[in-house]
Amino acid sequence: MAEYVRNLWYMAAWEHEVPDGGMLSRRLLDKAWLIHRLDSGDYAMLEDRCPHRFVALSMGSKRGDVIHCRYHGLGFGPDGRCVHSPFPETPPEHVRAATMPVVARHRGLWFWPGDPALADPALIPDFAFLDRDEPLTRGHMTMKGNYELVTDNLMDLTHAEFIHIETFGVNGSLFESGVQAVQQDPDGAIWNKWTMTDARAPDWAKPMLGEGQRVDQKLHMRWHAPASLALLIAMGKAGTDYAEQVIPEMISPHIITPETQDTSHYFYEHEATEQARAMAMQVFVEEDEPMIAAAHDGLAGQDFWDARPAILKTDAGAIRCRRALMQLRRREAGEAA
Amino acid sequence: MAEYVRNLWYMAAWEHEVPDGGMLSRRLLDKAWLIHRLDSGDYAMLEDRCPHRFVALSMGSKRGDVIHCRYHGLGFGPDGRCVHSPFPETPPEHVRAATMPVVARHRGLWFWPGDPALADPALIPDFAFLDRDEPLTRGHMTMKGNYELVTDNLMDLTHAEFIHIETFGVNGSLFESGVQAVQQDPDGAIWNKWTMTDARAPDWAKPMLGEGQRVDQKLHMRWHAPASLALLIAMGKAGTDYAEQVIPEMISPHIITPETQDTSHYFYEHEATEQARAMAMQVFVEEDEPMIAAAHDGLAGQDFWDARPAILKTDAGAIRCRRALMQLRRREAGEAA
Amino acid sequence: MAEYVRNLWYMAAWEHEVPDGGMLSRRLLDKAWLIHRLDSGDYAMLEDRCPHRFVALSMGSKRGDVIHCRYHGLGFGPDGRCVHSPFPETPPEHVRAATMPVVARHRGLWFWPGDPALADPALIPDFAFLDRDEPLTRGHMTMKGNYELVTDNLMDLTHAEFIHIETFGVNGSLFESGVQAVQQDPDGAIWNKWTMTDARAPDWAKPMLGEGQRVDQKLHMRWHAPASLALLIAMGKAGTDYAEQVIPEMISPHIITPETQDTSHYFYEHEATEQARAMAMQVFVEEDEPMIAAAHDGLAGQDFWDARPAILKTDAGAIRCRRALMQLRRREAGEAA
Repeated sequence: MAEYVRNLWYMAAWEHEVPDGGMLSRRLLDKAWLIHRLDSGDYAMLEDRCPHRFVALSMGSKRGDVIHCRYHGLGFGPDGRCVHSPFPETPPEHVRAATMPVVARHRGLWFWPGDPALADPALIPDFAFLDRDEPLTRGHMTMKGNYELVTDNLMDLTHAEFIHIETFGVNGSLFESGVQAVQQDPDGAIWNKWTMTDARAPDWAKPMLGEGQRVDQKLHMRWHAPASLALLIAMGKAGTDYAEQVIPEMISPHIITPETQDTSHYFYEHEATEQARAMAMQVFVEEDEPMIAAAHDGLAGQDFWDARPAILKTDAGAIRCRRALMQLRRREAGEAA
Repeated sequence: MAEYVRNLWYMAAWEHEVPDGGMLSRRLLDKAWLIHRLDSGDYAMLEDRCPHRFVALSMGSKRGDVIHCRYHGLGFGPDGRCVHSPFPETPPEHVRAATMPVVARHRGLWFWPGDPALADPALIPDFAFLDRDEPLTRGHMTMKGNYELVTDNLMDLTHAEFIHIETFGVNGSLFESGVQAVQQDPDGAIWNKWTMTDARAPDWAKPMLGEGQRVDQKLHMRWHAPASLALLIAMGKAGTDYAEQVIPEMISPHIITPETQDTSHYFYEHEATEQARAMAMQVFVEEDEPMIAAAHDGLAGQDFWDARPAILKTDAGAIRCRRALMQLRRREAGEAA
Repeated sequence: MAEYVRNLWYMAAWEHEVPDGGMLSRRLLDKAWLIHRLDSGDYAMLEDRCPHRFVALSMGSKRGDVIHCRYHGLGFGPDGRCVHSPFPETPPEHVRAATMPVVARHRGLWFWPGDPALADPALIPDFAFLDRDEPLTRGHMTMKGNYELVTDNLMDLTHAEFIHIETFGVNGSLFESGVQAVQQDPDGAIWNKWTMTDARAPDWAKPMLGEGQRVDQKLHMRWHAPASLALLIAMGKAGTDYAEQVIPEMISPHIITPETQDTSHYFYEHEATEQARAMAMQVFVEEDEPMIAAAHDGLAGQDFWDARPAILKTDAGAIRCRRALMQLRRREAGEAA
């Protein structure tokens, strides 16, 4: 399996997932980590394994900013150093739990698995839209499949015409009148923009529209390495430049972080209603995940490129992301060598 | 594990297992394949993985002779070429699902995993007896254990004296009066023939025979590479040259195809009665499979020859099949090198 | 994973675990073995795999001192030689089930996986205390975790202050007044001795003692390679040199044998009461095993030393055992090379 790119910000969790006065234990990039909130309001992230006899620190207890191992009582501070020992001797300086830089930003907790000296929070992708003060549900699930296959799925929305027929209701309009554009932002973001002009309206929108009223639509997906995505959608009456809205422009996170090479964390958002939750679960669990898991099973451990995938024009965005990630990977391998 | 011999016909399924208008998905030689019946009555066999994004094609749909992928709608013809695309562009020529030659013969579907140019249907082993017009049940099960261990079991029927005591009822006669002969046919078939002359009759046959009536018996097993076997049995009153029948001569298939290196497909036949079904399940599932699975576990991944098996004279047939398969394997390795 | 030291006695089972007239099948050092009692009262230990077609011999039957394979009826004597064949031919001399020296000693059965010529029963560690004629329960369980991690747990009893608070009730006295001494016996045994002088009494002992009565305590753990341990404990009124007993000196076995590199057999003893059984299960299953399993998971296949464990003074006994075992391992590797 391809190495993880290290000098990047990945999302570990939503802030609200860290329990008050407690710890969140989560497998990230194949290793167990724990996150806890410090008295200062900042967060600390420690490898979830005691450097003494290797049991999970999250089986222990948190007292103030110190995590105490359940097995022999050693206590570790936010920087991973052993700051408490029940033994008469002073614990040696080198007894340290591994740590990673972690920053709370845009309701998420972002970690940097590479060189801490390079961990500039300004490099966290812009998810400022998550800061808006609306009562939305911000959820987390794990999905079977390598995170790059989840990116493929998100960066090529033509699959909506096949597996999201009921939920997205694009009804063929993506193929009829869709125009695809792949663009890159100065910060490295890659956009895959589908725009449908003067298209047939989806069935569910017809009651809101006059008979035969046609629409303009945007389905714009944005990617930041490694796999932090955002989807911007909008629908307006055709020819009004979205002034006469059917769906106002809205943007939602699809932030993916590798749990392992075979499984992915998926961070998403939806309206805080049971109906919206059910819709999200249908899309993610019943429609997307079976395809992503089947692609993962189809590869059966084979490298994506070694499997010589067919590349269609509609894959342009997805492939550009894969190439960008590969360049980052090669650069890090080069620096290491 | 030993490589599979590629330039050979293997049985994939009974014809009746392919659903009308549908697909049969089956793991064969470690890979997932799908089989479907064409409008012409012939069959096509495609790797069960889309060459675009690798999901199982069997999750999709069949329309006429074309299999459509569930994920992005690409359609693949019987030769694996992409013949339908929902995208504006023509799919490139090289976008192909892998295929294998497949031929319907003797109620079975036979595939050739090697060089298609060599796939001569005349090389399919002679199972013409399966064409007979009797209302028999033709069944399929998977068995734990490498297919060569299943061959060992079938080619050395002395185990019947230990694990099939109730079902076969040879009752020691195989050791008392059995004569073993190993023979080879011009087409490469290897026979392991047990013949019992003037032997004690099994208990279940006594009501059909006079008190003390002795019998002649044949237990002749035929093997074709890789593991397509047939068992010919007969019983007659001793000294009548089988003219006075107790069991008329009958032949039944025991056709084995590797599902993986650790599991085997088993194709069999029995009378279409519940009693015959129960008897077959007792023999295969309760008596044979535990032994074959235990042998597989005992090897624990070790090569059969590296484990230095004891070889008895009664193993002559089984060992000859193993050697024949090894020669085929070496010949293919030599051609590849 | 580290190789097993071969030229050592390991405990396979309690004698009473071998059923009368039957066989005990047990995985030891990654392989399946069977043990049975001979007519002479001695024991035989055979690899639990027939040398003919590799099925588990324990699926067969025992007749006298001979184990008969279920598959083809070959019979194997205590030295592993094939002494019975249902076939006309004499089985060849080299058809042998692997064996290991096995000796009944101190209610246990001890095996020697190395060179049989070196298997001197005088080298079996001294567990003579197990011969005492008391109606004790001698139990067996398997525990998740490499056997050296179980040794670590036993040789560093400071963990009692954290995970055995209710059961051992040392209540901080080990840290307050405990003195640790690591000693080696001439036979290679390594002792980790904790002695508490004039310590606070545990809560459960207070009804037996005057108000404020302080106690002396011993917690002495003895190790023999590979992982055969014994715990000696005692408690007396402080200053009486254990003459005024609170707990009389008693010693109990904690004998560990690798089942695999990831799981361990644990042989223990307790009073033959339901209360004592429940207490043992709480200590082993609810308190110790989760820590040992977590340490095993924390290492995730990594070598203990490669994980650069913190080493505290209290680890002196455990580390000395690990080093002793490593020296034995290196010596055997050197002899093999």
